[in-house]
Amino acid sequence: MTFAVLQNDTFLRACMGQPTEYTPIWMMRQAGRYLPEYRETRARAGSFMGLATNVDYATEVTLQPLERFALDAAILFSDILTIPDAMGLGLSFRPGEGPRFEQVVRDEAAVAQLAVPDMDKLRYVFDAVASIRRALAGRVPLIGFAGSPWTLACYMVEGASSRDYRHVKTLLYARPDLMHEVLAVNADAVAIYLNAQIDAGAQAVMVFDSWGGVLADGAFQEFSLAYTARVLGQLKRHGADGQIVPRIVFTKGGGLWLDAMMQDLACDVLGVDWTVNLGAARRILQDAIAAAAGAPELQATALQGNIDPNVLFAPPAQVREQARRVLDAFGVPGGAPAGTRQVTHIFNLGHGISQFTTPEQVTELVDEVHTYSRQQRSASH
Amino acid sequence: MTFAVLQNDTFLRACMGQPTEYTPIWMMRQAGRYLPEYRETRARAGSFMGLATNVDYATEVTLQPLERFALDAAILFSDILTIPDAMGLGLSFRPGEGPRFEQVVRDEAAVAQLAVPDMDKLRYVFDAVASIRRALAGRVPLIGFAGSPWTLACYMVEGASSRDYRHVKTLLYARPDLMHEVLAVNADAVAIYLNAQIDAGAQAVMVFDSWGGVLADGAFQEFSLAYTARVLGQLKRHGADGQIVPRIVFTKGGGLWLDAMMQDLACDVLGVDWTVNLGAARRILQDAIAAAAGAPELQATALQGNIDPNVLFAPPAQVREQARRVLDAFGVPGGAPAGTRQVTHIFNLGHGISQFTTPEQVTELVDEVHTYSRQQRSASH
Repeated sequence: MTFAVLQNDTFLRACMGQPTEYTPIWMMRQAGRYLPEYRETRARAGSFMGLATNVDYATEVTLQPLERFALDAAILFSDILTIPDAMGLGLSFRPGEGPRFEQVVRDEAAVAQLAVPDMDKLRYVFDAVASIRRALAGRVPLIGFAGSPWTLACYMVEGASSRDYRHVKTLLYARPDLMHEVLAVNADAVAIYLNAQIDAGAQAVMVFDSWGGVLADGAFQEFSLAYTARVLGQLKRHGADGQIVPRIVFTKGGGLWLDAMMQDLACDVLGVDWTVNLGAARRILQDAIAAAAGAPELQATALQGNIDPNVLFAPPAQVREQARRVLDAFGVPGGAPAGTRQVTHIFNLGHGISQFTTPEQVTELVDEVHTYSRQQRSASH
Repeated sequence: MTFAVLQNDTFLRACMGQPTEYTPIWMMRQAGRYLPEYRETRARAGSFMGLATNVDYATEVTLQPLERFALDAAILFSDILTIPDAMGLGLSFRPGEGPRFEQVVRDEAAVAQLAVPDMDKLRYVFDAVASIRRALAGRVPLIGFAGSPWTLACYMVEGASSRDYRHVKTLLYARPDLMHEVLAVNADAVAIYLNAQIDAGAQAVMVFDSWGGVLADGAFQEFSLAYTARVLGQLKRHGADGQIVPRIVFTKGGGLWLDAMMQDLACDVLGVDWTVNLGAARRILQDAIAAAAGAPELQATALQGNIDPNVLFAPPAQVREQARRVLDAFGVPGGAPAGTRQVTHIFNLGHGISQFTTPEQVTELVDEVHTYSRQQRSASH
């Protein structure tokens, strides 16, 4: 494969703790229902999975937000539930209801049937990655992604979204042995899946631990963090173009466990939601980096996040003010002593963008992040 | 009024940082649907509000869990939405749907209409408190409660439960001036309401900041914490019997803000959910107490929580093991230098008990907490 030269590598440099001229920004779920052009493509595709499994549609919607906004990265259009679907659990999306599985994994017999799926069933994902990378033609880097082993397990055991995670936590507390079996299969499946995305052209990969934050302290470390670490331990470090592929881990509601993540996760970037103070998080990363000085292992050096997506329902002046508050909370980039790694910042939402967002507000947000973060850097000289 | 002598003051002593022979336990929503006898009374009452507004029914269900379990406190059977209901917003509970308000507060006109409600409309609550206190006859202390100003505002603006808090956050970010007006009215209403419960016989009061954890860092301090502090600043310190009335504040999902709470809240107890490590939280309280040494103001000296209620779906051995883990995470009580306040622990769930819980598992939990916490104390001598 040959690849177009990357014209905007700001996001990739920030992932690796390298200085950038401004703070890069992309948005979780940036290709989505809040865009009229997305809704139009989805109507043609007929269904969500019709969209996700068709390489041309997936390519089209992935690029849509880049036409409107000066975003610094693209992210594969897909869903975290492709893996349990390929395991044969029967995924469907009913209108207004969210995802649902025909089969649930709640007992010994169901767990015994689980296995890492044949990656041929997920060929459509890898084909989409390759197609999107070609279509991007080097404009911005492409992020691949997967759900965390625990987050996939939540859906596999609950069979759908849940408010209380009763079934998956019942299995966890009543039969931790079975839960560990599920998570081990999931971790190996996620690792193979992400490696195939890397081979197909993904320039960074992200693990969405969307439901790690519902676990108790102790249970999080044992049932979520340990298996995300198992995924990371199996990932390829270099992409199809020979470049390093940064790894991002985002645990929604995981702000209390940043220290544990710094200890256990061989990743480059930690995503945080809006409950986290970015200045405090930056200090946690800096302290952990200093404590590990000399140890060569991979350790996060960047934070990603964390504006509340609901800010985008406010008028432009307030959107811009809240964007500045997030940038100010992180503080002026740089300033670490020579020879030590900087903690860097990638601007994002603290969760996926809402379908009710007005696209015009996103333009305001992206512009303010780029403009104000340049000002921060020049004012500090 | 004359009051029966309190036979079990373990909970009240733990609230005030005083040593106890064992760790007291009560459970959020301990009078509830998981109890067959509750379901029977509720069927007679016809509806949830029929139950809550009838003094005899409210008394009956408040005492039901005490008949089954060796709990160390009772809590008024009521709902946090009684205040917005008394404001005239029209509360109803539809089966399977949760609470709903006829009117929502989303614009200047609706905010202008808000006022602290006439407490006569809430007479049924104060009558219930007096009735329950009499019926308890000194067995255990009675906790009164209210929702936090922010949590009430969530329901008043959303009109119902919400997954994304879109409407209330839109108001917050677009019209912070209006949000502050709503919260000021709510805070004053909550303070008057809790004082009336104290006058009627409540021996401790708890503020449920159930939705504080959905706010962004910064927004939490400005829109939730500040108004809980405003409530606490207006509360009576002594009850109808002349005894100190401890104050408990529980912010679900607020584990990142314990430091801020220690700075700003004149309360005795901080509730924490299961994401919090109790040992780490204990150190935060101890450090804050040490830093404020000599300052006489009221500052939390006890933690309340924090087992995941889903643990109660596991078999007895696992329930007991998880209970011990929570007690071990807090550590052996006592040990602070002479003259300094101890940080104490009150065992609770990290959220209300699930309606699907088997009552027998609660018996296991309560017994393990009492037994093991006595062992912890004797082993340390």
